[in-house]
Amino acid sequence: MASTRIREARERDCADILRMIRVKPAGWKTECRGAGSGVVGAGEELAEYEQLSHQVKISEEALRADGFGENPFFHCLVAEVVPASGELQGQGIGTKIIKKVAEVALQKGCSQVRLAVLDWNKKAMDLYKSLGAQDLTEAEGWRSFRFEEEAMKEMAGC
Amino acid sequence: MASTRIREARERDCADILRMIRVKPAGWKTECRGAGSGVVGAGEELAEYEQLSHQVKISEEALRADGFGENPFFHCLVAEVVPASGELQGQGIGTKIIKKVAEVALQKGCSQVRLAVLDWNKKAMDLYKSLGAQDLTEAEGWRSFRFEEEAMKEMAGC
Repeated sequence: MASTRIREARERDCADILRMIRVKPAGWKTECRGAGSGVVGAGEELAEYEQLSHQVKISEEALRADGFGENPFFHCLVAEVVPASGELQGQGIGTKIIKKVAEVALQKGCSQVRLAVLDWNKKAMDLYKSLGAQDLTEAEGWRSFRFEEEAMKEMAGC
Repeated sequence: MASTRIREARERDCADILRMIRVKPAGWKTECRGAGSGVVGAGEELAEYEQLSHQVKISEEALRADGFGENPFFHCLVAEVVPASGELQGQGIGTKIIKKVAEVALQKGCSQVRLAVLDWNKKAMDLYKSLGAQDLTEAEGWRSFRFEEEAMKEMAGC
């Protein structure tokens, strides 16, 4: 049985964090979730698993600047698993991390944690629901909209 | 024709901001949108218009603490309209604010602006789409999940 430790991410974790955002290394089940510095928590999941790898544009340098500057854009927790090999799914690492996110969020004075989940990821949705989350898209009709940089520049008149 | 000025919110605007989050004053079309301190922008719309007034729990004191402390949870823009009377819908104030949000977000190094919209609010969705936004719930299947404080405390073992 592997042992798991959840800790705050450090600046030198950024190369690993970027790899985990992009791809799922063999035999490695990792969740990287941020307790947003805002009232709303932000979630980050594996782009490859989500079939959205092509959307990952961020660099290690940008991750360092965004997460470890004076007024960080995100906070990140990492799970260290010993031994770091074998298939790690089903050991409750995701549950441990999301519980820690709730703890950190409460400490920071947050009154909600929000997550974005893809509708085919039933496993994740079931986990969040089992822990007391509500599907706002289903319950209230919330939709998520995104402006990309090109549209932002157009709007700003750049 | 009324004239509109978009400016950064100040701490003393908090009473007005709270009123605008809760209800839509007669003859007053106001949008209050935050450029999140995170990579992701956060949107705030009128709870009464959204039929969600009962969900507004925040106090003026909490707004002051969250928005004007050392590491703010949110940033806010307000539109000042002169004269502040008459029906102000259809004068493009929403468009002006969302364009300013894009400008501020670019200045802060954000690469995206995300918004949450209720699915029956076709007017807002049409506006965002006309400005280049993509409906991620429709295009990629993103759903929004929320943990409330009670579930967070349960998870954190409080």
